[in-house]
Amino acid sequence: MHILVTNDDGVQAPGLLALAQAMRTLGQVTVFAPDRNWSASGHVKTLERPIRVTETLLADGTTAYMSDGAPSDCVALPLLGYIDKVDLVVSGINPFSNIGHDVTYSGTVTAAMEAVIAGVPGIAFSLASQDKPANVPADYGPAGEIAGKIAKKVLENGLSEGIILNVNIPYLSVDAMKGFIITRQGLRVYRDVLDRRVDPRGRPYYWIGGEAPTGVNEEGTDVGALASGYVSITPLQLDLTNYKAMEVLKNWEWK
Amino acid sequence: MHILVTNDDGVQAPGLLALAQAMRTLGQVTVFAPDRNWSASGHVKTLERPIRVTETLLADGTTAYMSDGAPSDCVALPLLGYIDKVDLVVSGINPFSNIGHDVTYSGTVTAAMEAVIAGVPGIAFSLASQDKPANVPADYGPAGEIAGKIAKKVLENGLSEGIILNVNIPYLSVDAMKGFIITRQGLRVYRDVLDRRVDPRGRPYYWIGGEAPTGVNEEGTDVGALASGYVSITPLQLDLTNYKAMEVLKNWEWK
Repeated sequence: MHILVTNDDGVQAPGLLALAQAMRTLGQVTVFAPDRNWSASGHVKTLERPIRVTETLLADGTTAYMSDGAPSDCVALPLLGYIDKVDLVVSGINPFSNIGHDVTYSGTVTAAMEAVIAGVPGIAFSLASQDKPANVPADYGPAGEIAGKIAKKVLENGLSEGIILNVNIPYLSVDAMKGFIITRQGLRVYRDVLDRRVDPRGRPYYWIGGEAPTGVNEEGTDVGALASGYVSITPLQLDLTNYKAMEVLKNWEWK
Repeated sequence: MHILVTNDDGVQAPGLLALAQAMRTLGQVTVFAPDRNWSASGHVKTLERPIRVTETLLADGTTAYMSDGAPSDCVALPLLGYIDKVDLVVSGINPFSNIGHDVTYSGTVTAAMEAVIAGVPGIAFSLASQDKPANVPADYGPAGEIAGKIAKKVLENGLSEGIILNVNIPYLSVDAMKGFIITRQGLRVYRDVLDRRVDPRGRPYYWIGGEAPTGVNEEGTDVGALASGYVSITPLQLDLTNYKAMEVLKNWEWK
């Protein structure tokens, strides 16, 4: 089995190393990740400029490819033939959860989407480490162990065509986690505010500010599962059609 | 009615002007668009840097706001309070169709998503001008007229919460168009290839190359509607859950 590991936080991120190490217990691993942080950068296909690829080393001394492309480019290039045939693409481990509406913004999730569009199973892993104290570094050990278990199941059972798994892991020890739940995508509640400031030359500039997003804590959703201490596994698809709305719109008078 | 007009091709794009002019027949219009092309840039929330906003003029002498943020930022900032309350967000007119899997890559479509996440109806408009001869400029007149008709219907009837309309318009005169069809998202067929080149200093670089994507020409889909000369209207949602796959995954042995 050949597993491609990428992320959206850049090749130096500790979550990437934890994921690569977990995947090495399951097969051959190639790491191909962005050279910088692309968080909240969405689903990108870099067409207007060429992409550079260089070899680098992870903190455990193993080789990785690093590119100046987006996370989804770091999946596209390998699958277009930069490396040998890939059986599974995993992305992460993102330091913060990717739940609810986060999924289209998330470089972690859209990297997994890119795999699925190319016909290879894709899994996105995110750790709810926003729940830890801010002054200690995140421990990716438990999340790496969980990622290994889930990837193993996917390699054994396969995924239906077009399905991405979006996995969110609570910031707990493996023993303290309540188990695995299959969930639906919940609702994020963003609390962004416009933060207007004035630069030293008197010109305004704007931050998207505000508090961290919350979510509607509903049973059966990714939001609810995480809040209750479960590993949340949400199968996502690339068909965004709302079939109910189609029926409503068909009754409008179009002419 | 206050309508926000944006796009992903940048404030100078002729499709933006055509859309702004069509919307002015329906109400007050504010144009707030990126200062450069963001095609295939996906759903972005710019959090790591501040955003600048400047006033500029469109080619018809009307005022527009221009920002160095992504298309979705150009929706977020106005809706977070940069301008007065907005009733409708329209994005486009993109010079090429956004069908099938294009929707998560598309800055045009993700700008409309950003509106819907903020609770404002959003419509993305794209013109299949890839079907015109390459050596003549695109005529956005017919597409502007169609965009006006559809926006009028949306303002009259409203859209259900969470619904984005993804509109694709064939490159035909209004008379030659066959009418409007409500469609589901079809399947894109990407034909990307890895194009390896060597720079003047002997170092390799990579383009995502290959021919333009095609699609599976199936009745009832956006791909099929456009190919048959219809205006395609696809209602999209932000819930990407595949509910069937949930049932399959629940039967896996998780422990």
